[in-house]
Amino acid sequence: MAISGKQLINGLWVQGEAGQYQAINPATAAAIEPVMSYASKVQVAAAVAAAEAAAPIFAATSLAQRAAFLNSCADEIMALGDELLDRLSQETGYPKARAEGERARTCNQLRLFASTILKGEYLNIRIDTALPDRQPLPRPDIRFTNQPIGPVVVFGASNFPLAFSVAGGDTAAALAAGCPVLVKGHNSHPGTCELVAQALAKAVQKAALPGGVFSLIMGSGREVGSELVLAPAVKAVGFTGSQAGGMALFHLANNRPEPIPVFAEMGSVNPVVLLPQALAQNAEAVATGFVGSLTLGVGQFCVNPGVVIALQGPELDQFCRAAATALAKVPAGVMLNEGIAAAYHKGTAHLAGQAGVELVAAGEAIGGKAGFCSQAQLFKVQAQAFLANPHLQEEVFGHASVLVVCQDKAELLQVVSSLRGQLTGTIQAAPDELAAYPELVQQLRQKVGRLVVNNYPTGVEVCDAMMHGGPFPAATDARFTSVGTASIARFVRPICFQNYPAALLPAELQNSNPWQLPRLINGVKTTAAVEA
Amino acid sequence: MAISGKQLINGLWVQGEAGQYQAINPATAAAIEPVMSYASKVQVAAAVAAAEAAAPIFAATSLAQRAAFLNSCADEIMALGDELLDRLSQETGYPKARAEGERARTCNQLRLFASTILKGEYLNIRIDTALPDRQPLPRPDIRFTNQPIGPVVVFGASNFPLAFSVAGGDTAAALAAGCPVLVKGHNSHPGTCELVAQALAKAVQKAALPGGVFSLIMGSGREVGSELVLAPAVKAVGFTGSQAGGMALFHLANNRPEPIPVFAEMGSVNPVVLLPQALAQNAEAVATGFVGSLTLGVGQFCVNPGVVIALQGPELDQFCRAAATALAKVPAGVMLNEGIAAAYHKGTAHLAGQAGVELVAAGEAIGGKAGFCSQAQLFKVQAQAFLANPHLQEEVFGHASVLVVCQDKAELLQVVSSLRGQLTGTIQAAPDELAAYPELVQQLRQKVGRLVVNNYPTGVEVCDAMMHGGPFPAATDARFTSVGTASIARFVRPICFQNYPAALLPAELQNSNPWQLPRLINGVKTTAAVEA
Repeated sequence: MAISGKQLINGLWVQGEAGQYQAINPATAAAIEPVMSYASKVQVAAAVAAAEAAAPIFAATSLAQRAAFLNSCADEIMALGDELLDRLSQETGYPKARAEGERARTCNQLRLFASTILKGEYLNIRIDTALPDRQPLPRPDIRFTNQPIGPVVVFGASNFPLAFSVAGGDTAAALAAGCPVLVKGHNSHPGTCELVAQALAKAVQKAALPGGVFSLIMGSGREVGSELVLAPAVKAVGFTGSQAGGMALFHLANNRPEPIPVFAEMGSVNPVVLLPQALAQNAEAVATGFVGSLTLGVGQFCVNPGVVIALQGPELDQFCRAAATALAKVPAGVMLNEGIAAAYHKGTAHLAGQAGVELVAAGEAIGGKAGFCSQAQLFKVQAQAFLANPHLQEEVFGHASVLVVCQDKAELLQVVSSLRGQLTGTIQAAPDELAAYPELVQQLRQKVGRLVVNNYPTGVEVCDAMMHGGPFPAATDARFTSVGTASIARFVRPICFQNYPAALLPAELQNSNPWQLPRLINGVKTTAAVEA
Repeated sequence: MAISGKQLINGLWVQGEAGQYQAINPATAAAIEPVMSYASKVQVAAAVAAAEAAAPIFAATSLAQRAAFLNSCADEIMALGDELLDRLSQETGYPKARAEGERARTCNQLRLFASTILKGEYLNIRIDTALPDRQPLPRPDIRFTNQPIGPVVVFGASNFPLAFSVAGGDTAAALAAGCPVLVKGHNSHPGTCELVAQALAKAVQKAALPGGVFSLIMGSGREVGSELVLAPAVKAVGFTGSQAGGMALFHLANNRPEPIPVFAEMGSVNPVVLLPQALAQNAEAVATGFVGSLTLGVGQFCVNPGVVIALQGPELDQFCRAAATALAKVPAGVMLNEGIAAAYHKGTAHLAGQAGVELVAAGEAIGGKAGFCSQAQLFKVQAQAFLANPHLQEEVFGHASVLVVCQDKAELLQVVSSLRGQLTGTIQAAPDELAAYPELVQQLRQKVGRLVVNNYPTGVEVCDAMMHGGPFPAATDARFTSVGTASIARFVRPICFQNYPAALLPAELQNSNPWQLPRLINGVKTTAAVEA
């Protein structure tokens, strides 16, 4: 099916009733065919009603059925073939290799969730059997499992048109948990959104699930987004994007008559601390690695290293020279859309205008390039000026970073302790050097979700052990990751069954353990049956 | 040490600087010696600063050290002996047997958390080892564990002066997680609060922990409570109490510059559905069981059954007669304090005045009894009147309940579907009767945290499988329990370590697995070491 510009509501493709628009190719600023549509409030309500109706049916599917469905979603995305990759590149300016890589990541992610739910650990099954003779009171039989929280709204991110979008991490986690998903697609890549939604709609149909299990709604965040978050049937929200956007949704959701959780991953400046021995031994390699991380994907990552912290000295001078050399070779990059490019130009100009801030290195100038281009930039500031100016901690989305120069270790620790919550914190250290900085590690552990040593923060592995989140304002809830298998926990809630008829228990709680899952039975983890 | 009326701040007992008061014996309305004090804002700030300073030190303790500390807390509470039980009875009107039972529950709870953390499951350890040869990109070594979220404020409940108070479930869970705790004690039982805090202070001292690990602050919720919740160093709040109180804290916390989670368990009406065959076979036993649950502890439980739902018919008439007979024998009860008794009188009078509501049975009248007494009451209303009046779903804290009479199964389902979120839902059903009500079960599963069959909701077992919480407004976050070992999850947050020097990893993530904990290594749960 060609791109239609329609909305996916209750399994049907319908023309949006609230206006039309076209995607823009950021490399050329030209409009892309076809004309797309925005959903009306009535259409949003219809999608929510379909999700609500689908919720108990989808919740009643077995783990095996849901796993098969997730794998089928991945198959259908692959079956879109080059049409998806081409459209993605057109809408984002990403080279085809990046498109392919992100497609692989997205499909692997769906398959990883499929294999994860089959293991059943995420259900956190707990069974305490009856103790009828206990004194002074008998203990009833109590059995605990996780069930889907209900319909989930997912806001697609601009910068990962596949992996954090229509069938991205939030969607995969919510579907894995058994929650219907309503995606508010990102208006920067609506064709990509629609193609992926076509794939998911096919998978829904092949699995004979109700259409309400998956919907795609296009529109503005302020209108359609608010409408979705305020719908009483919606029980949770996943979001990846700006702090302003995330906090608007957070407050909207908390002030509903029934508040609901908003898992907003809002980016951060991802400090990189360069310890002196690491620089003394390896300033060039550290600089090259840093510039690579800073400029990957035109810096359009939430884990982009936006602040570098180091002690002054000849090693740092060497790092700066090497970074300048590396940065000079970085071409001006096409950003995702006009708004992001404009924000980058404004943000870097604002940085350059702050007291004590100087530009120390830059990439290729934009020159006469077409499209929404930007130039990589590295600024420098003394620690005291950084400490005095909270604006310097604000994320500038793109390939810009601020080097904070500290006079001594005490000042370095002061800079680190002044940081707000972060997705990641990185330390470049020589062998054995880190052991001399216990306070630095302790400080960073309190600030970040992921602590990286001698790697760079870009590259968020989709795996069991990933924590992609962190203390506010990196995310609205530091207790959850939005990448990796632990992210399912956002979309389930526990229920326990007391003295419940054995035959009517959910499969995972039945005595015979038909799915052979690990369960905590009377305090012991086992896959054994319950002795009835 | 005798009761001093002081605050426990940074390990020292200091006179509160914001006024004085005395506890009131609810059975006599007489003031109890000695004079107690309220903390000032400056004193709150000092307690918070001590907790902040203690946080990294407490977080660095081993699981074994924290388990020993929790057990020591239980030992010290037991060592208070009869002084604690007597003071508790004086301050609450509870008989000594209840005081003893609650003390046992509280100490067992501390010991259960001690044994739970030693198992290490709550750390959710995940290790994905490096794949240096992976194509197109190598995978770094990534290791995930849970760490304490930071200082936690706990608001003691009025109705469980031990088990949901100073060293109650929230405190035990937070300490188990490694978080310093600041308790805002309940002003109804300040002497009990102080005695328990004395016990915990001793345990802190014996464990050579910093005084800031545990503080007791007395004062009004509006002043001292707000001050605590707004303190930037505080990272989470546990609360058990009214919806008004819980929601005030929730909004306060969400509107901080850095929002923090509030786990408020705000009670509910805990619907009990009586299916017709259950009544036909056993109306008297069901009625007696119900009245026992309704009037236990003068009905002062958040899981008290405040709404009963049943089909009209001769079986229900029989239930009503039997309930009336049982209720008539229930003595007028002493409530916890003047405010609770006044709210009960107001709430029952309000119920009695609603259209279609009639009083069908009651316990002993108050008569000339001393203290803050109340009479048990059972009201009746037709389903249509119930559906038309949301006030009838409001909790009246105490031994009052509303029987909702339905004309048929469809109306019964309509009543159930109209309910808001609940801590519990109970069904009384004859053998095999439940299977005929799949919609009822499905509806209740979406409404409750605990689904009870042929038991009553009162009696919240402290165990692995307990879920004490539920969809809003029963609790502010349906994804967490406030009773049982799963409640630790509220007070930890994940962090992952990428490419981290093996020797500097936290113990639970080290290759050798020194604590022998279960870990998910490359997708497989095992206690084996990581092959380096």
